[in-house]
Amino acid sequence: MENPPPLGQVVIIGFGLIGSSLARVIRGKNLAFSLVAIDISQTNLDAAKSLNLADDYLYGDFAHESPMNAKLAQALAGADFIVIATPMGAIDQVVGWVKLHAKQTAILTDVGSVKSLVVKAVKQHGLERRFVPGHPIAGTENSGPAAGFAELFQGRWCILTPTLGVTDADALAKVKFLWQQAGSAVEIMTAAHHDRVLAITSHLPHLIAYTTVGTATLLEEDVQGEVIKYSAGGFRDFTRIAASDPIMWRDIFLNNPGPVLEMVQRLQEELALLQRAIRSGDGSALESYFARTRAIRRKIIEAKQA
Amino acid sequence: MENPPPLGQVVIIGFGLIGSSLARVIRGKNLAFSLVAIDISQTNLDAAKSLNLADDYLYGDFAHESPMNAKLAQALAGADFIVIATPMGAIDQVVGWVKLHAKQTAILTDVGSVKSLVVKAVKQHGLERRFVPGHPIAGTENSGPAAGFAELFQGRWCILTPTLGVTDADALAKVKFLWQQAGSAVEIMTAAHHDRVLAITSHLPHLIAYTTVGTATLLEEDVQGEVIKYSAGGFRDFTRIAASDPIMWRDIFLNNPGPVLEMVQRLQEELALLQRAIRSGDGSALESYFARTRAIRRKIIEAKQA
Repeated sequence: MENPPPLGQVVIIGFGLIGSSLARVIRGKNLAFSLVAIDISQTNLDAAKSLNLADDYLYGDFAHESPMNAKLAQALAGADFIVIATPMGAIDQVVGWVKLHAKQTAILTDVGSVKSLVVKAVKQHGLERRFVPGHPIAGTENSGPAAGFAELFQGRWCILTPTLGVTDADALAKVKFLWQQAGSAVEIMTAAHHDRVLAITSHLPHLIAYTTVGTATLLEEDVQGEVIKYSAGGFRDFTRIAASDPIMWRDIFLNNPGPVLEMVQRLQEELALLQRAIRSGDGSALESYFARTRAIRRKIIEAKQA
Repeated sequence: MENPPPLGQVVIIGFGLIGSSLARVIRGKNLAFSLVAIDISQTNLDAAKSLNLADDYLYGDFAHESPMNAKLAQALAGADFIVIATPMGAIDQVVGWVKLHAKQTAILTDVGSVKSLVVKAVKQHGLERRFVPGHPIAGTENSGPAAGFAELFQGRWCILTPTLGVTDADALAKVKFLWQQAGSAVEIMTAAHHDRVLAITSHLPHLIAYTTVGTATLLEEDVQGEVIKYSAGGFRDFTRIAASDPIMWRDIFLNNPGPVLEMVQRLQEELALLQRAIRSGDGSALESYFARTRAIRRKIIEAKQA
């Protein structure tokens, strides 16, 4: 007889790019008995249904619905494994529902881009033992279930931030197993460290890309029209980054203000240095700065993250 | 009898990514009787030779060599069509050599990223009639002749900045013809307008990418090591841009300070706005800003420049 699917009954709350990609992995590898998709957007649910990505599709607005909503309660109560993949702003409310309805043995995880916030919510609800906060370092500028794909996590890192000495080894092992099945390499670190590393590798680049594109939209009309035409010179890459989901990014910045503002301050110091070099015509300062940053690219290529 | 190759004897000065890609186009389409590559780097010349990209390969250091160097003088004197594809900093000296040795009927052009500087040098040397300044909006983060390829300009724009009422129609037509053969669409504008448009579409994004990567290199060691590991979150795209040739970019910033510093100032005003929104937790300001920049991306996709 075959082994039973290792994750049992799975519920994914928030069925966008990440949630639906994970669903594709779970179904593609037969990791679940059944998979229920919950989302606040009926459009997302309809798209997921037309792609046949889950066994059931439930509308759930955790901010406004009664926590006693029978359908949602039943889905959560039946789950062995619950993944929260909503924007960060919904985390606290969703964890509250999960705490209320999920069975004691259910393993819980999330995919949010800021981890201190999740760890705080998990602690407040007393769920540290079986909630393993996670963050797959993967994504595209596209949103919604139709944009997802099973290979999204292949060759990428997934960071887990369990509470040392408190989180169950079994829960950690099962969440780790899921990400390995998705093709990711798993790393474990503290939430605070995660949030600082991501502030520089992800949050700052996004903020700067948004800002650069925003700057272009304020120029005189005759220049503005040509920004799009001649975007191949570098601007285009920024617009791709600045096309990421506005709600997701609003929530990331609102929930990781300390590290993000520190990185912005550091960036401005560097920018002031280069502005001064340009203004004073200091070519050797510019050249040596640019040569230094080029070396970083080589390291990324060597690390096979390019 | 077949028509003679339209460009006659061609000399390309500066045989890097752009110069060598253009050589590939010229030879691939039989546009020249012969093609001479001149470069300041023997490594570049050796690489070009091993790839058989030209008919002759000449070392030339226009800043330090005697203008009477017989080999260089002879090559320039024999040319019907001369392309300058050196970094911007060498333009003035190279134009001086070309003025001294090229025959009166030779058509001259360049590929530099800042056009006011070129127009100024061309005027000083009294060459406006037959020198057509040009700038292909194409490139990669790689440098040198081995990184070039004939398709680099395919589907891209090439901007020409001739002097209205002065530049020969024949010279303009021939330079335009070359870029159309390379697969580019040609646009004509003033040098000043070009330098402002490129300051926002290319120079600012590069400066910001360099600055962001530079910021990361100054963080504590334990964070720095992880920057490379977790670069997939957005930082990676910046490192690609920040891997571009340091000399080329030094010269761009030194030669387009006005428009670049204006764009940096505008960017800082936008950044201050977003910093303030993050610090004060103003989610709706962030969300509406991000939604606005997303729309720009759609326009770029519609314009088929993505």
